[in-house]
Formats: sequence, structure tokens, C-alpha cells
Amino acid sequence: MLGTCLENVRKTVPLVHNITNYVTVNDVANVLLACGASPIMSDEPKDVEDITAICGGLNINIGTLNQRTIEGMYAAGRKANELCHPVLLDPVGAGASALRTDTAVRLMEELKLTAIRGNISEIKTLALGSGTTKGVDADVADAVTEENLDGTVAFAKEFAKKSGCIAAITGAIDLVSDGETCYVIRNGRSEMGKITGTGCQLSGMMTAFVTANPGNVLEAAAAAVCAMGLAGEIGWSRMTEGDGNSTYRNRIIDAVYNMDGEILDKGAKYEVR
Amino acid sequence: MLGTCLENVRKTVPLVHNITNYVTVNDVANVLLACGASPIMSDEPKDVEDITAICGGLNINIGTLNQRTIEGMYAAGRKANELCHPVLLDPVGAGASALRTDTAVRLMEELKLTAIRGNISEIKTLALGSGTTKGVDADVADAVTEENLDGTVAFAKEFAKKSGCIAAITGAIDLVSDGETCYVIRNGRSEMGKITGTGCQLSGMMTAFVTANPGNVLEAAAAAVCAMGLAGEIGWSRMTEGDGNSTYRNRIIDAVYNMDGEILDKGAKYEVR
Amino acid sequence: MLGTCLENVRKTVPLVHNITNYVTVNDVANVLLACGASPIMSDEPKDVEDITAICGGLNINIGTLNQRTIEGMYAAGRKANELCHPVLLDPVGAGASALRTDTAVRLMEELKLTAIRGNISEIKTLALGSGTTKGVDADVADAVTEENLDGTVAFAKEFAKKSGCIAAITGAIDLVSDGETCYVIRNGRSEMGKITGTGCQLSGMMTAFVTANPGNVLEAAAAAVCAMGLAGEIGWSRMTEGDGNSTYRNRIIDAVYNMDGEILDKGAKYEVR
Repeated sequence: MLGTCLENVRKTVPLVHNITNYVTVNDVANVLLACGASPIMSDEPKDVEDITAICGGLNINIGTLNQRTIEGMYAAGRKANELCHPVLLDPVGAGASALRTDTAVRLMEELKLTAIRGNISEIKTLALGSGTTKGVDADVADAVTEENLDGTVAFAKEFAKKSGCIAAITGAIDLVSDGETCYVIRNGRSEMGKITGTGCQLSGMMTAFVTANPGNVLEAAAAAVCAMGLAGEIGWSRMTEGDGNSTYRNRIIDAVYNMDGEILDKGAKYEVR
Repeated sequence: MLGTCLENVRKTVPLVHNITNYVTVNDVANVLLACGASPIMSDEPKDVEDITAICGGLNINIGTLNQRTIEGMYAAGRKANELCHPVLLDPVGAGASALRTDTAVRLMEELKLTAIRGNISEIKTLALGSGTTKGVDADVADAVTEENLDGTVAFAKEFAKKSGCIAAITGAIDLVSDGETCYVIRNGRSEMGKITGTGCQLSGMMTAFVTANPGNVLEAAAAAVCAMGLAGEIGWSRMTEGDGNSTYRNRIIDAVYNMDGEILDKGAKYEVR
Repeated sequence: MLGTCLENVRKTVPLVHNITNYVTVNDVANVLLACGASPIMSDEPKDVEDITAICGGLNINIGTLNQRTIEGMYAAGRKANELCHPVLLDPVGAGASALRTDTAVRLMEELKLTAIRGNISEIKTLALGSGTTKGVDADVADAVTEENLDGTVAFAKEFAKKSGCIAAITGAIDLVSDGETCYVIRNGRSEMGKITGTGCQLSGMMTAFVTANPGNVLEAAAAAVCAMGLAGEIGWSRMTEGDGNSTYRNRIIDAVYNMDGEILDKGAKYEVR
């Protein structure tokens, strides 16, 4: 089933509008191309409405936000809502600064979001108005583990229900919920955390997946998470002596490029709760 | 002959000022270094005149334009014109938004351009004031094919003549014309479209080539197109099982790095019409 | 000893706030992760104070400065000073434009810097108010060579003493001085100059090293320089036929990822004057 979600991306080639940080933007563009979608980047308020209008979905990532691009996020988001395009929010660093927390919270309030993807610290910040985010990586105190899994699944469901969209909480264990059901996903490798932007890349891919699977957004979001994690596993299996995080980055995107529905269905490791 | 154009870049190490999008800027810098040129990036209006003054050529790419950088494009372009430096325009996404179309058209009107490089949709937008651009990739309806080649060559010549500069229309078949003559180039591979920024990289390289070959800009522009396409062929020949678009990106820049005039002359596939 | 400085980065995982150019920002983030640190990027004046407050060190790189980010540099720098965090300045292109020279000089005047890292042209510009910078690469006339080494070591010491911080002048031979002592470092390869951003990467790493070794900043800065140069040597040794600057970029970051204190201590080539 998840494999079909990937195949639908390859078949329909969704054009995804990204307002994303300049740190990882190149990798986001390449992973979108790798999974079969087509990326376009635009963050200027006077440009974003036209651009989002010709796209199928919108990916908003607040990673290196500034006052001009925040304005672009609202303008693009409202236009995408008007056109009933799926909109994803990646609240990078929510909890790390007032501007980031406020921007993410207000985007949630003012826009109809299809999905929110972040680490547990960021999502807790959005849920509770406070968090223990330290920088842009999840705090250890907030990690999703087998020990706290039941509680975190309940939290994911509640957050999804309250925010009225798919909640994707990614980390060592990934959770994807629509408020009723929760995918618990165990793909991926810890070494992915040593590459900048695997989260940003996943947000781009997830936007493509939900855009290409409009009737089935929960499964599509889960498929994107499994695909990214599986690519991390496949990419790691191709590493040789002396390779490090820079080569690993390439290998992961390469693995997405070579993935088809069958590979994804065979490699996806998840349970539904 | 084309090989000599590349050798001239390696001999003279032109310093190229780039006002370019933040998606592919790193690859543009590395491909400029790979072909023997030296890149500098600056888009702040208060910085660009000084920077362009110490450079040999200017590459303007509107890929992630904003109001500040548009002002920088005009300021840099006017200064470059004053100093008789070659100026290249890459109208990324012309036709996809009013801001992009208007900016590209106005830059053409207000600056003396040496070359314009875009896909057929973007160039048609500039020529006709309307197009069928969908995003930043050429629309299928606009593709240059063997079937419509005669008409497209005529269009390229006419566009070059009217705009008073080299027109480089790139796609499956590439056309480079000065209004009288048209190079029809068949280097490259379709898989290059699965990497973000091969067009942006080519625009950077073309600026270096025309800067290093001031008396011979048509041939220099054609040489840059052949070099990029040939690098795509050489890079592809080094791909192994499991490699994808991310590795391909590296292999293409690597191939430019290892290319010399002889390799280019042997590998260039073109006819002159 | 130098190896201990690297081990301290891996042990303490310093969070480094980077205000850096969009050309090489992704590589800066990945090299920080490779050496064991954690990167965060933020340049919006309304965001930088919160961000720098949760970090351990601040890396200011003026590579693609604009008026908004310059404001961010001051705001972050003042906050970091208030919190006694180490602050590094990379004056990219000082001497190439009035805005860059003025910004770098004023940052030196208004902030308490821990270290300045640049090429000899940039540092001479800061010292003398004029230079021979052409673009962002050191001018040949300014190169540090065995012939002018004594004079340049004296210059490095004097510059460090006057500016009250570590001076790191990098090129074919690297000099790192605190005003009294000068490390003369001969790691690295000339081919590193064919990759964009090895200097920016080093500035990021050096910030991590001085942050993780607060009582020992001179040695920490020298260790970062040796580590980067040694990574360039190790990375080069893994290059194969047909590889070029793009693959070399990956191999260097990979080499940092796989480096430990012992490797650094064995591979570091330096004398102390």
C-alpha cells in the first residue's frame, strides 16, 4: 500500500512549492526530484502567490526564517488554502527562539495545514507553548523511546486531533497520526542525524506524497517517512571504509532515486496503532 | 575550436560575479572552479557595484529573486555595462509568475546583455510576453524536438537578433545563436533533468566562457553548452549500481574539472546552421 | 595535544550559531556535524539573540552579507559578548568592496572577538585598511611562502596582539597566533582551493574547537586548522581516476567525520615559533 503512494508521486510528478531554509534547500530540491516530484523555490511575498498557484502542494519550513520570508509564508499559505492545495509545516527550531515559536504557532492558527512534521521537541513546543528544544535537534529528554512509546503515541494522536492535521513526529522511532490512527515506524539509522537536513528533505518528500495521494494523506505521510528511513538504511549499506556523513548524504538521495513501490513495501517497518 | 574556448578559461581564470539563487549556488561556485574560473557571489545593492568592478563578467539568475536582490541585479548590471563586462541573464521561471516575467523582461530592456540562457518555455515567454511555463522546467508542449527543429532554429535566430545578444535555448537539443548562425547541439543526457541546477551551472560556466573569449562569444557560449552536456555524458559513464541523482551531480562537476580542450573537441556533438 | 582539542569537541558537542553565506552554508553545517559539533543557522535580527543565547559559540562570516544580516551580525555578536561566548569573524572578501571592508573593520571594533580567520589578503586589509584582494581568493602577490615566512609570522603576531584575539591566516602555509606564539602549519593541499568553501568550513570548525576548549583557544584554533588540512590530505588519498573537486569536497568532510584525536596528532604538521 505504501508503495502505491510512492508510485503515485512518480506517475503524477507533483510540482511542490518550497519556502525553505537556505541551509538544506539544495538537498530538498534533489530529494524531490529523486522521488519523482518537481521542486520550485520562492519566498518573496510578491512572487509566492503566482508560484503556489501553479503548484500542487506547499512546503513551509521556518529554518532560516526572516521577516520578509515570514510574510511570504502567510501569503503563500493563504493562497494554497484558497486553492485547496495541501500545505505542510516544518517548525524547525520551534522552542529555540520566540520568533520561531510564535511564527510556527501563528501559521498553525491562520492556515489550514495538511501536515506538520517536526521532532518531538518542536511538536511539544507547538502543543504546550513551551519545550526543551536546544537548537534544531531534539533534546535527549524529549526522545521517543520504547519506554515512553505508549504515552507518545497518545500525545501524537491528541496533537493531530487538536490541530486538525496529520502529525508526523520523527526521531529514533517515528510517529504519524491523523488523530485516530498512529503509524509507529522503525525505519532509519541514527547516523542520519549526522547529516544536516534529513528532516527538511523528509518534509519536502512528505509534501509531494500527500499532494500525489489526496484521498489518502495519512498513509501518504507514513509512506514518505518509511521511504526516507529506508533510504537511510539502503544508503548506509553502500558505505565503504573511509566514507562519512557527506558521502552518506549522497547515498540517501541516491537510494530515494532508485526506490520503487515494491522496494518500499518490502523495506517499510511499521505497525499501526 | 570549442576546446580553445575552454583552454582560455583555464588560462585567464576569469572572476565571475554571480547574483544567483540560493538553491543551486554552491554547485554554480564549484562548477566555475571546475572549469578554471573563479566565482564570487554578492547580491546586496550596496555591495554589488564594487564586486562587479573587480570581476570580468556578471551572471544574473532570477531563480529565487526578491525585491532587494532585484535591485542588486540592476545596480550590478548597469555597472557591468559601464565597464563593458559581459552580462548573462538566466530567466529562471519566467512565465511562472508575473514578478519573474516582468523582472526578466525589464532586465533585457534596461541592460545590454551578452547572452540569455534558458529553457524554451522561458525564452518563449521573453519573446512573446506569454508562455506555457509550468514551474521552472520546460513544458512538454514547448520541447525542442527533431520534428520542430527547423522552426525552433528560426525562432532562436530571430530572438537573438531582436534582443541583440546570444540566445542559448537548452533542453534535449540545445540551440545557441547570435542571430545569424545557430549551433544545434546534441550533447547531454535526459537524466541531467533529475538534478537541480544543471541549467544554473551552465549559466555560470557560459559567463566564464564568454568572459574569457571576448572576441568570440558565440563559439564560447556554444562551447560552454557542449562542455556541460559532455560532462553529463562522461559523468553518467562513471555511475555504478545504486548511484542516483545526487552522485550524478558530483560526477558531472568532476567531469568538468577533468575536461581539457582536446576532450571537449572530441566529445562535442554539434552542427552549425 | 591537538588531538585532545578535537576529542573535546566530540565529548561536549558544542552548539554553534552560524551567520554565514548561502554559498557554502550546507558544507559548514555538515563539517560541524562531522567534527562532533551541532550547527544552527539564523541571521534575522529578531531571531539571533535568542538563538545565540542557547548556543556555545558564534561564527560570523560576511560572505554574502546584506543590510539585514549585517544588523543580525551585530545583534548576535553583542549578545554573545554579553554571555562570554567565543565569537569568530571570517571577513570573506574584505578588501573586495567597501561594504565588506567596513563591515569587517566595524565588527572588529564593536565586538570582542575570540578569533579572526581569513586569507592573507583579507587580514592585511583589516590590518592596513587597504589590500590587494581580488575577489575572495588571496592574491598571488600576498601569498604566504617560505621566502616571506619570517615577515609574515611577525605580521600575524602583531595583528593578533593589536586586535586582541587569535589571528588565523590560512593559505599554502597557515599561521595561527595569539600575539606571542605562532603556529606555522603545513597541512593541506593546493587542490582544496578548487572547492568552494573550505575556508568557510574551517571557520565553522574553528568556532566549535575554541568553544569546546575555552582555556586553550590558541591550541584549539591551531588544531582546527590542522584537522581541516589533514582532512584535505586524507580526502585526496581516497580520490580515484575521474574524480574532481565535487567528489573531493565530499571526501574532505568524510575525513573529518572519521578523524579522532590520535589521527590528528599523528597527521598534524606544524612548528611553533
